[in-house]
Amino acid sequence: MKDFLSRLDGYAEQFERILGKYCAEMDYRPSVLAESMRYSLQGGGKRLRPALFFSALEAFGGSPESEGMLALALECIHTYSLIHDDLPAMDNDDFRRGRPSNHKKFGEANAILAGDALLNEACSIALSESGKDENHRLAAKWLIDAAGAAGMIAGQSADILYEHSAEAGESELHFIYDNKTGKLITAPLVMAAILTGKHFAEMCAFGTELGRLFQMTDDILDVKGESKELGKTIGKDSAEDKLTCVKVYGLKSAEVRADLSAERCEALLEGIPEDVSFLQQLVRYVRTRTY
Amino acid sequence: MKDFLSRLDGYAEQFERILGKYCAEMDYRPSVLAESMRYSLQGGGKRLRPALFFSALEAFGGSPESEGMLALALECIHTYSLIHDDLPAMDNDDFRRGRPSNHKKFGEANAILAGDALLNEACSIALSESGKDENHRLAAKWLIDAAGAAGMIAGQSADILYEHSAEAGESELHFIYDNKTGKLITAPLVMAAILTGKHFAEMCAFGTELGRLFQMTDDILDVKGESKELGKTIGKDSAEDKLTCVKVYGLKSAEVRADLSAERCEALLEGIPEDVSFLQQLVRYVRTRTY
Repeated sequence: MKDFLSRLDGYAEQFERILGKYCAEMDYRPSVLAESMRYSLQGGGKRLRPALFFSALEAFGGSPESEGMLALALECIHTYSLIHDDLPAMDNDDFRRGRPSNHKKFGEANAILAGDALLNEACSIALSESGKDENHRLAAKWLIDAAGAAGMIAGQSADILYEHSAEAGESELHFIYDNKTGKLITAPLVMAAILTGKHFAEMCAFGTELGRLFQMTDDILDVKGESKELGKTIGKDSAEDKLTCVKVYGLKSAEVRADLSAERCEALLEGIPEDVSFLQQLVRYVRTRTY
Repeated sequence: MKDFLSRLDGYAEQFERILGKYCAEMDYRPSVLAESMRYSLQGGGKRLRPALFFSALEAFGGSPESEGMLALALECIHTYSLIHDDLPAMDNDDFRRGRPSNHKKFGEANAILAGDALLNEACSIALSESGKDENHRLAAKWLIDAAGAAGMIAGQSADILYEHSAEAGESELHFIYDNKTGKLITAPLVMAAILTGKHFAEMCAFGTELGRLFQMTDDILDVKGESKELGKTIGKDSAEDKLTCVKVYGLKSAEVRADLSAERCEALLEGIPEDVSFLQQLVRYVRTRTY
């Protein structure tokens, strides 16, 4: 796991350099707009999605160095979704990664606009990258569609709809998992597949299962985790009666299902001849993480 | 003016057909997501931006019939901006075009997501259109950038920042006008210029002035208009101490400046050899509108 963590750090550092340059050059007016965008973009985080993208590119013979802007677009989308998710009308979370959430720092109106601006920024980058060649346009379109009304936003909408629902069960839970979380975990893997022309179907399947595993451990940590370690409020899912795997299966059964999901993730990587050891280790890391 | 209104209706009908097809085929889940997107998209409005686009394409020898999807992307962006603008944390408006605003109908969380989804949808369309040729990619990118942190969102941010400001004056007012309103009025004209290879500089200049004229008359109508006719709450700018031309210049001087702006708009069209009579008549229509 030590080797894995140093590789994860390496990808994150590679991404932080791209992000740092982008944020330093950002001169949008009024300054509160640029500040609120930077505040959330540079608020830390594991940079898991860029790491997925870079590692899959590397494994399949692509060039992570050339694709930094698509990684940036990906993280802009992830960041905007967190800003809007934290809003009082949404999940109403005052903290994110151990700091005040965007709307606590800049006010609700600025947080709404910072989120909008980051989504717009991702699209602008996607359109720039599309000028390189047809594969870049297809990869960029995959990313934007993964974020949209047939992807992440559908999952967020379902997440709200099924709060306090007595009828919702496994099928609704999977809809939330596959869209709210899975689509943006799958997107970097599929983008790498499109750009290198390799393992498209495998990355679709692996990304979806990894998304489920990731969200299951998230649900479990909301019950078992430590607020300080996680950098966010604990026990919120239960307090808000969210549809989670713990609610649907109970904690013990949810843990077993997370183990089975991790095994399925590993199985889905088995047929790939290239070195996907980073993705294999990531599966263990996600399953055993405590934050 | 009768000829102008029938042409405006014609462009609007042409757009409504495209929109109607798009909305009928929209099957996003959960259904509340698709419903809330459709509710605002099909909430009426003059379809001014698509009309600007179609008329400029027509004037410069382009094909409005082939560019319906870019018109749709444009209106998706305009619609999302209205949904987010109406939110309690933003302009807090309960009515839009004589109907309850999106968040009054579907709740705040769904309204935030419907807005996000419409911006995302515009980007997805932009990326599809980019596959046609390089001019389409450039036109689509112009649209997305006009909507973003160096465009419409910058103007919205400034609009909030300069509320209750005693120092802000003409320069800040123009920043709001040119970005919040002007960028999305200019975008369809510039897109038509890019797609036809004609009058790029003229459309940039004319669009910016038309945006100022449009927002000036909007500010004036917020003082002088009738709520029923406008379909929205009247006197809100003054109640919220917004930075408007009426606040900066007073009502009488604002009216004179609107007249001068209309004259500048007309002058900017004078050098164009093609038939831009629709744009010329539009200037008079915007200046004299009562709703």
